[in-house]
Amino acid sequence: MILVNGVAADSVAATDRGLAYGDGVFRTLLVSHGKPQCWSRHYRKLAQDCAALAMACPPKDVLASELALAAGATGDGVGKIIVTRGSGARGYAPPQPSVPTRIVAVSASPQHPEAFLRSGVKVRLCRIRLSSQPRLAGVKHLNRLENVLARAEWNDPSIAEGLLLDEEGHAISGTMTNLFIVEGGSVLTPRLSRCGVAGVTRERVMEAAARQGMVCREDHLPWQRVLDAQEVLLVNSVIGAWHVRECGNRRWEPGGFTGRVREWLDEKED
Amino acid sequence: MILVNGVAADSVAATDRGLAYGDGVFRTLLVSHGKPQCWSRHYRKLAQDCAALAMACPPKDVLASELALAAGATGDGVGKIIVTRGSGARGYAPPQPSVPTRIVAVSASPQHPEAFLRSGVKVRLCRIRLSSQPRLAGVKHLNRLENVLARAEWNDPSIAEGLLLDEEGHAISGTMTNLFIVEGGSVLTPRLSRCGVAGVTRERVMEAAARQGMVCREDHLPWQRVLDAQEVLLVNSVIGAWHVRECGNRRWEPGGFTGRVREWLDEKED
Repeated sequence: MILVNGVAADSVAATDRGLAYGDGVFRTLLVSHGKPQCWSRHYRKLAQDCAALAMACPPKDVLASELALAAGATGDGVGKIIVTRGSGARGYAPPQPSVPTRIVAVSASPQHPEAFLRSGVKVRLCRIRLSSQPRLAGVKHLNRLENVLARAEWNDPSIAEGLLLDEEGHAISGTMTNLFIVEGGSVLTPRLSRCGVAGVTRERVMEAAARQGMVCREDHLPWQRVLDAQEVLLVNSVIGAWHVRECGNRRWEPGGFTGRVREWLDEKED
Repeated sequence: MILVNGVAADSVAATDRGLAYGDGVFRTLLVSHGKPQCWSRHYRKLAQDCAALAMACPPKDVLASELALAAGATGDGVGKIIVTRGSGARGYAPPQPSVPTRIVAVSASPQHPEAFLRSGVKVRLCRIRLSSQPRLAGVKHLNRLENVLARAEWNDPSIAEGLLLDEEGHAISGTMTNLFIVEGGSVLTPRLSRCGVAGVTRERVMEAAARQGMVCREDHLPWQRVLDAQEVLLVNSVIGAWHVRECGNRRWEPGGFTGRVREWLDEKED
C-alpha cells in the first residue's frame, strides 16, 4: 500500500519537484510486525538529509504510523519513505514556503537466493564512476541516475551487486550497499565526503565494531586495497550483510567478520 | 494544462522512476500559436537524451499534438516535456521492458523585467560547483539538485541568474542558461564534456555564428577568462539571449554580439 501525505493513493502531483528535479530524499528500511526497524536511527538520518536540502522533515510519529498502515495486515515488508520539496511552479528556485510531499510505501521483501547469505556473493566492478559533489555526499537524495546506470551494466542474476569507484579510483560503495573491508586487524569503510550514501547499517556496523574494541575507521580505499583485503562485505538495511566471495578473478574464503556483523545487526534497536 | 501519457491529468504514478531516481529527461521550449518552436531541433535533442539513458522516446508527432492541446485556447506559453523510464518495482535495475511515461505541460511565459532585455542582467557566481560525470554530461536529465541548490543561493530579484563553475574552476553555464563570451574576435562557449546541459539555443547560436563566418568554438573557460571577456551572454529557449552587464565588481558595457544573437534566434525554424 502507498500513502501520499497520509492518504492511500497511487499517484503524486505531476508538478512535484521530486519528479521535476529529484528535489527530495528517501529511506529504505525493514518493517516487521508493523514496526519500522532501527527507527530512531532511520528517522534521524531522514531528518539530516532533509536538512541538507533545507527542507522540513515530516514528524517521526506520523511517518511511523503511516509505515504501520502501509504494511497492511501482515505488518511485514520493505518500507520506503520519500520526502520531496512538494509542488512548485516551473523553475529551479525552491518555493517559499514549500510544503513537503511524503510518500510512504511498504512492499514485499526481495527474494534473494538463499546462497547469497550462506556462501557469499559474486560482485562486479562497474564501469561508471561516481561523481564528486561534497554538498550532497552522504545524503540519500533522489538524484540516483548514477546508481541506475551502474545497475543497468549487468543482468546476470548470479551477480548480486556492482561496486562503484569515484573518479580517482577509490572504492565508494555498491549500487545499493555500503562497503567494508578487513585489512590486517582493522575494519575499514570508504570515506564518503565527496560521494556515496552514508547508510544507517554502515553506521550501526561502525558503532558496534567500536563498542567491541575493534579498530574501525573511514579511509580512502583505492581499488587494489579492496582486492588485497582479507574480507569484503556489503551491508544495507534490507539485506543485512553479504560476504563477497568473488569479483573478477579474485576469490575470497569466508572470513569471520561477516558473521559477527550479522550478530550485531540482529540486536534490536528503538 | 498537463497531459500524462496523452490524458489530461494532474498526477503521475507514485512508483514512477522519474520520481524515485530522477530516471528521465526533459525539455523546456516555447509554444506559439499551438506550435512548439524549433521543434525539429528540440525533438532531436530529446531523442538523443532518451538514448543516453537507453530509454525509448515518444513519437515526434504525438508530442507536438500534445503540446498544442496543452497550450489551450491561447496556444502560447512555455512547454515542458518530461519523459521518464516509467513505473517500476523497488530497486535501481531498469524494468525490462520499460514503458516510458510522458508528461506534457504548457504554462504561462515567465514575466522577467523588461530591463533584462533592454539593459542586460546582473548575475552572481554560485558557490556550489558542478560535479563531473562524463556519462551524463550535456544530457538534460531529471537529476537537477545541483541547479536547485545553486538557485537557492540567492533570492534578490535584481539578480537574474547564477553562474556555475566545475570543480576545477571552469565556467560551465548558468543555472538555467548556456553561456557565451566574446574574446578578441572569437565567440566561445564552455566545453560540456564533463558536466552541464548542451542546450538547443546554444547549438543554434553556434551554428548561426559559423554560418556568418565567425570563429565560434567550445573551450575550457577558467573564470578569469569570463571576467576578462569583452561581452558575456546567457541564452536559453525561453529567454532568448541576455547580455550580462554586471557580476560582482565587474561591469560590462553593451556589446554588439547579443543583438546579433537575437536576430539569429528570431529566424524561424521547423
